[in-house]
Amino acid sequence: MKKIEKNNVIELEAGAGGEKSNELIGRIRKNFKARGKWKNMKDDGATLDLGNGKNLVFTTDAFIIDPLFFPGGDIGKIAMCGTLNDLAVMGAVPVGLSLSLVIEEGFPQSDLEKIMCSVGKVSTETGVPVVTGDTKVTEKGKIDKIEITTSGVGLAGKIISNGGAKPGDVVIASGDLGEHAVALLSQRFNYLTKIRSDSQPLVKEIQAVAKYLSACKDPTRGGLAEILNEIAEKAKVKIILEEDSLPYKKEIVAISNLLGIDKFAFPSEGRFVATVGEKNAQRVVKILQKFNKEAKVIGRVERGKGVYLKTNLGSLKLVETPRGKLIPRIC
Amino acid sequence: MKKIEKNNVIELEAGAGGEKSNELIGRIRKNFKARGKWKNMKDDGATLDLGNGKNLVFTTDAFIIDPLFFPGGDIGKIAMCGTLNDLAVMGAVPVGLSLSLVIEEGFPQSDLEKIMCSVGKVSTETGVPVVTGDTKVTEKGKIDKIEITTSGVGLAGKIISNGGAKPGDVVIASGDLGEHAVALLSQRFNYLTKIRSDSQPLVKEIQAVAKYLSACKDPTRGGLAEILNEIAEKAKVKIILEEDSLPYKKEIVAISNLLGIDKFAFPSEGRFVATVGEKNAQRVVKILQKFNKEAKVIGRVERGKGVYLKTNLGSLKLVETPRGKLIPRIC
Repeated sequence: MKKIEKNNVIELEAGAGGEKSNELIGRIRKNFKARGKWKNMKDDGATLDLGNGKNLVFTTDAFIIDPLFFPGGDIGKIAMCGTLNDLAVMGAVPVGLSLSLVIEEGFPQSDLEKIMCSVGKVSTETGVPVVTGDTKVTEKGKIDKIEITTSGVGLAGKIISNGGAKPGDVVIASGDLGEHAVALLSQRFNYLTKIRSDSQPLVKEIQAVAKYLSACKDPTRGGLAEILNEIAEKAKVKIILEEDSLPYKKEIVAISNLLGIDKFAFPSEGRFVATVGEKNAQRVVKILQKFNKEAKVIGRVERGKGVYLKTNLGSLKLVETPRGKLIPRIC
Repeated sequence: MKKIEKNNVIELEAGAGGEKSNELIGRIRKNFKARGKWKNMKDDGATLDLGNGKNLVFTTDAFIIDPLFFPGGDIGKIAMCGTLNDLAVMGAVPVGLSLSLVIEEGFPQSDLEKIMCSVGKVSTETGVPVVTGDTKVTEKGKIDKIEITTSGVGLAGKIISNGGAKPGDVVIASGDLGEHAVALLSQRFNYLTKIRSDSQPLVKEIQAVAKYLSACKDPTRGGLAEILNEIAEKAKVKIILEEDSLPYKKEIVAISNLLGIDKFAFPSEGRFVATVGEKNAQRVVKILQKFNKEAKVIGRVERGKGVYLKTNLGSLKLVETPRGKLIPRIC
């Protein structure tokens, strides 16, 4: 990873999840020595024991997506859901969000209204207030329309660390995956689809099953491939997915083939994947199916390392952390 | 404020502080109905009583400045100081920061290193860790080099609300003002100056005097004019500045005249202005002078409303919230 030569520049791929993103983040992180009493700093949210039985959970997410509006949502909705869900997967109840905007001069007031209306709607529905913010405006051409950064704070009793998966656990998906990617890309690549973005807050769903979960993540940037590899690495376990149980609709698979992008790397913005002890698996699936009938067991955790797909023919295929050319600015 | 017509667009001035910024922020805010138990939501940071004698303070700030590097600092330093100081002026001890980056494809790795090194340096000096983050990369031309959003959480016993100023208080500046603006603009307008940005964390200074302060703010966007008007409005008081005691160096005044920008609107990134009961004024000034020998009383709080400059000739001149063409992207 000694690639920091003088003429090196940041490549587009480094922002799209996957291996190059992880390298870039590593180079940024190494400058920060102070740690305080925080934990889980490589997780979706960092956690701080407040000493009263509660942990503070803190997270942030930047959104500069293209297009801004897509079937099933807009940048305001996913900016809210992204941060709420990062708190939720840690086992936290979100208590407040911040909203920072960078807007291009000349941006239509009516589009800003629509986006802020989406932000407000998610806030009202979840009861999580937007409590602080910042608004900057740049000259034309200095930002692509609008960028939103949301940060969030939540409170949690027990933290769900994504390193908690154990051999014998099963892997559960809260619904079908990849719909956010397919809906958003339909606008950019101009194909027809009935698929709508899956973006939604997951706070209630995760709270309903939190006590049973040994690990939990939302498959955003880098998709299922990225988060399962992260869980497997952190927990030092092997994860086996079953081909028959993959959480992808036929149309998602077809568009994945059409675009030549691995479906395992397709982001979702309103789904989570969790590991659960086998004895509670059916109970958790049943509860989750009240929210989304596609919730199901998609694989299992074993001793070993790596993430594999077990095909219907019985062979094992490695599912790697996404690498190479990924599509930027979809989440 | 019913200006939301269909063809209306966001104007550059709305991002530079002052009246148009306040209008834009008002239009954004009105979409957010949920409040929870948060307080001080129009202050530098929102506050939430944690029920154990402590308040959580939460704030955020976006930085897309031009130039990125300037005498006395860079975007990394002010992104850190801006958020630390927003927590500090609320009376909070900062406990953790988040760092979200949007980087333009092709941005030099070495510049990113320098900026992250500045971020790390402020974190180490103040002992406040960067605990969570996000990094996105856009195609060329979709962002101007780099944008940084920092959010921060802090803990406070007593909150310093900026509505707490009382008639009889004096107004104290922690040092000379406007040096950040003059240093940064020197790069953009190509004039020679020895002035360096005042950007620095204020955590220790404010903690040293916090118990004496009735109101406290850092004069960033919109400068002294903006914050004094905010304090006067919220506390329903009048503020009188004394011409002889104005906290501006001669060179700052000269460059203000040269550029035709009111010095009262010049941002600082490492100063604060506070109101203090008269009996503690000299004690507070003495403590603050250990950090910066230019700390002094600059005015007083009276019954009434508005902010005024009392000239040496004895006349009163209104100091209004900045309006009209302000310079964007300096803080």
